[in-house]
Amino acid sequence: MINKEEIQNQVIRTVETVRRTNPMAGSVTNTVTINFVANAQLAIGGSAAMVYLPDEGEFLAKASAATYINVGTLLPIYEQTLPHIVKILQETDKPWVLDPVAVGIGSLRTQLLREFKEYKPDVIRGNASEIIALAGLWGLEGGTDLSNVRGVDSTDLVIAAKPAAVALSKWTGGAVAVSGKTDLITDGRIIIFSHGGSHFMGKITGSGCSLGGVVAVYATAASPFIAALTATAVYNLAGSRAENKADGPGSFQVQFLDELYKATALDIANNPFEIEEV
Amino acid sequence: MINKEEIQNQVIRTVETVRRTNPMAGSVTNTVTINFVANAQLAIGGSAAMVYLPDEGEFLAKASAATYINVGTLLPIYEQTLPHIVKILQETDKPWVLDPVAVGIGSLRTQLLREFKEYKPDVIRGNASEIIALAGLWGLEGGTDLSNVRGVDSTDLVIAAKPAAVALSKWTGGAVAVSGKTDLITDGRIIIFSHGGSHFMGKITGSGCSLGGVVAVYATAASPFIAALTATAVYNLAGSRAENKADGPGSFQVQFLDELYKATALDIANNPFEIEEV
Amino acid sequence: MINKEEIQNQVIRTVETVRRTNPMAGSVTNTVTINFVANAQLAIGGSAAMVYLPDEGEFLAKASAATYINVGTLLPIYEQTLPHIVKILQETDKPWVLDPVAVGIGSLRTQLLREFKEYKPDVIRGNASEIIALAGLWGLEGGTDLSNVRGVDSTDLVIAAKPAAVALSKWTGGAVAVSGKTDLITDGRIIIFSHGGSHFMGKITGSGCSLGGVVAVYATAASPFIAALTATAVYNLAGSRAENKADGPGSFQVQFLDELYKATALDIANNPFEIEEV
Repeated sequence: MINKEEIQNQVIRTVETVRRTNPMAGSVTNTVTINFVANAQLAIGGSAAMVYLPDEGEFLAKASAATYINVGTLLPIYEQTLPHIVKILQETDKPWVLDPVAVGIGSLRTQLLREFKEYKPDVIRGNASEIIALAGLWGLEGGTDLSNVRGVDSTDLVIAAKPAAVALSKWTGGAVAVSGKTDLITDGRIIIFSHGGSHFMGKITGSGCSLGGVVAVYATAASPFIAALTATAVYNLAGSRAENKADGPGSFQVQFLDELYKATALDIANNPFEIEEV
Repeated sequence: MINKEEIQNQVIRTVETVRRTNPMAGSVTNTVTINFVANAQLAIGGSAAMVYLPDEGEFLAKASAATYINVGTLLPIYEQTLPHIVKILQETDKPWVLDPVAVGIGSLRTQLLREFKEYKPDVIRGNASEIIALAGLWGLEGGTDLSNVRGVDSTDLVIAAKPAAVALSKWTGGAVAVSGKTDLITDGRIIIFSHGGSHFMGKITGSGCSLGGVVAVYATAASPFIAALTATAVYNLAGSRAENKADGPGSFQVQFLDELYKATALDIANNPFEIEEV
Repeated sequence: MINKEEIQNQVIRTVETVRRTNPMAGSVTNTVTINFVANAQLAIGGSAAMVYLPDEGEFLAKASAATYINVGTLLPIYEQTLPHIVKILQETDKPWVLDPVAVGIGSLRTQLLREFKEYKPDVIRGNASEIIALAGLWGLEGGTDLSNVRGVDSTDLVIAAKPAAVALSKWTGGAVAVSGKTDLITDGRIIIFSHGGSHFMGKITGSGCSLGGVVAVYATAASPFIAALTATAVYNLAGSRAENKADGPGSFQVQFLDELYKATALDIANNPFEIEEV
């Protein structure tokens, strides 16, 4: 039996724990949105640190209670850094969030994402096309080949990624969050549809990446599933509120960071969502 | 006979096509302003994707209808990536925009920019000093040696770059846009002077780089010359409007992105400009 | 005898000289906050340029009247670039500012920071933990080993870094600025405590990095000590003013850049501070 109120209580505890403890979630992430990722992590009460080198990644992975890995704008050194970090994360049994940005572009990205299969990221966050393509790359149900990827944008609807999301979360034993108009979060057994957000989130770069970074911060204080839900809920809430005050994408981004900062635990928990069993 | 109204109609069609089709323009660009480039491209209705690795650049060049190449903050891998991309762009006959940022700094930058001569970028966008220095590097009329370059700033007036801009566009068969107080756009036969903008554009980093990225988005839907003009016009319009609402460079940048997003095709076409034959 | 009014007059002259001459301060800095560093340098009247490659670093070091070096998000090329630049800076006797971000993370960072000891940076700017750890790394009084570093955050109070700051500035013959609730600036003989700022400065990324970049701009026009004081004072002033207008960290950052731009030389000089002899 799934209890909505119990889920909401866990969201509240997660938000409050993060605000009280200011946990660090280290990242290896792309250079396009790296600043926005850090600022979003700080806005919800976490701490951020980003690195590129293998031994710095190892240090951060050990020092952080959760780690965010985003494969956008790969540099040559990532070939050494990322496999090294995920190995450390597995050995130390620490949660990590994978953002398979633009899966399908380039051989290193494909190689890294293929390697990550056995390291079972605790949360996978992507748009529908990325989730479907990653399931395809890993030979899981609901996946297709990489032909639908167009840079960093999704060409698929969230609901089309449901089988892939469920298959991925069953494989990892963690959670998957599919971002789109209505967001889908699943742990392989239940699915939550989270509502809200803003059309402006597609008019600024990094709403997806920074959501991944925020999931990692919450994953320091909650299960992968609750972390993914909490992050998605605060994004939907802050997005809706920011849209009401924004005059365009520039002011939207400013307001969005303000609303991430101001959202109360109760409001985040009460952001509209529905539960369905797989 | 040059018809101003026909030019304006082309600007209108370009703006509307981009807003309707959300075209992607991939970039290899510097890390200082990469976020602003992407957000500006999104604000005018395009889509953005940035990469560093050679095969990812190849993928993007093929997947994008136009590409933006900015040689700021070069990394070692650029030595492989940039020549590879421009070769692909030439083979596939796709338009690309070159931003010769800080031409004259360092041997790799000089080597890359020298190589680009034979690949004939469809649009070259720079400040007056960069345009003059690039013409000099390519042995064209109006060019001088690199002694006037001071980092990323111009020490020359736009009008001083007129011969270099004309010579460069005659060489490439494309367009050249010189940014400054009054902007100059030429296709080697006619010259347009575009008015507007704001003194705040020199008080934020990336107004030039992001203009280059926006030119690339418009180049997916228009000739190099119209793309360069449309981008310059919307920048001048949005700059003027943002200045009226701004209290300093921080609020200016926010307002500027909002105004890029809100500008109508008609207002962009009507942004003041003059035409002169070469 | 220390004369407060004479210090204030030097601050005024520094602010005015920078606004009048628009000096360039080149940087090698991290990718997280690189945009904010540049925008802060521009807001106070300076000019910014960032590079990664050794010969570009050499060009910038020679072309700039002062240089900013921040060891965050190290890339492999930094192993060549940073030692090369500091050697040039020493040979040309030009001032430079060191930001020992996250000292203690990774072997390259430790190696570089250890090498920098003999090159005696004119200003060292960091949080309390970083200053204490750097003094430790250099074997100076007041330093401890690196065990207290947690990513980029400080776990120590500013006052705890006083002996380390004094020891570092005595070693370099320059100044040290320790950022925190009350900031400490010393030249090894006198100590200034500068007041103001905002709790929001810890809720955005890059307030420390950008302060370092602003110190470098002022160091083109003043002694290391006055440059560090002027930068700290304008940060404290702009931070306080921005907080009054901000609704969260997003709007704070926007207002902060506006206030950096608008602050008068007199207001900066009058920002509250106390002097104490070592």
